[in-house]
Amino acid sequence: MRKIAVVLLGAAALAGVVACMVAATGPVDVDGQAMPGFGITLPPGYRDWKLISVAREAGELDDIRAILGNDAALEAYSTGRAFPDGTLIARLAWSLDASAENNKLFGKEQSFVAGAPKNGLQFMLKDSQRFAATGGWGYAQFDDGQPASEAMLTSCFPCHTAAPGGDQVFTRYAR
Amino acid sequence: MRKIAVVLLGAAALAGVVACMVAATGPVDVDGQAMPGFGITLPPGYRDWKLISVAREAGELDDIRAILGNDAALEAYSTGRAFPDGTLIARLAWSLDASAENNKLFGKEQSFVAGAPKNGLQFMLKDSQRFAATGGWGYAQFDDGQPASEAMLTSCFPCHTAAPGGDQVFTRYAR
Repeated sequence: MRKIAVVLLGAAALAGVVACMVAATGPVDVDGQAMPGFGITLPPGYRDWKLISVAREAGELDDIRAILGNDAALEAYSTGRAFPDGTLIARLAWSLDASAENNKLFGKEQSFVAGAPKNGLQFMLKDSQRFAATGGWGYAQFDDGQPASEAMLTSCFPCHTAAPGGDQVFTRYAR
Repeated sequence: MRKIAVVLLGAAALAGVVACMVAATGPVDVDGQAMPGFGITLPPGYRDWKLISVAREAGELDDIRAILGNDAALEAYSTGRAFPDGTLIARLAWSLDASAENNKLFGKEQSFVAGAPKNGLQFMLKDSQRFAATGGWGYAQFDDGQPASEAMLTSCFPCHTAAPGGDQVFTRYAR
């Protein structure tokens, strides 16, 4: 209960990852400097990280998504303290498929479930020194296990740096 | 990778929890026998369990949800073996709220995030002996931390027993 209370206190000041799925429009300069390559490899075990929240992107993205975090991420969410170096946040997304079998059982067209993975697998990693040029966060996307191009990743920082809660993280913890 | 491959093999035969949110219509007899009370208390630490999948229920439920499982549940999903006694599966749900701040940033009305908890917090617990009368699974719902009435829970088993994959579990693991 204490943890939940702390999360409540901290949640208003925290924001979380919204996948940097704004279409990449080519390399982006940040304050006149070219963006660095992030060089983040696929973090092992990410699928078993804890749940931060869930979301739905309509429009062209048209997916249902889950935001997961490693222990450092969850500790920051629960205490309201800043995300420490080593924080990893993952954004998984799937197609949002109508479930014929559920709808048949319910007698209503109301049930949608996660289908195939969609819109890539995305991560943000906090490392104040390594990613100093982008405010301490590095970004990665993997499509079918393959890292996205650096050009693709140039859209992440300019979008995330506008996160209302600060520190480039959009997603709030879902109580 | 081996684990993922096994999940792929097992996923077709597995199904997972769909919240028993069919409106309770009063006590239900099962094969002429009154349903037992399940007496399941709120499992500690459920919010930190691992993610099985996400879903969206439209219509009257109108929520976005996450299905989480304890280690026994995840082990069964990853191996394709039957859910052992001690398996716990949780269904959390939230209102699906348009995110004005995300939409402003994206320049599109496309972003929906988890809002307040909604439609109760639901669990299914496998215990072959304790819940023999309902096929080995017991059900629980908590509304604002308070257990739902036994009458409310009588709708769970009749619905879940129709799960296409068998063993009363609807949700498939989201790769």
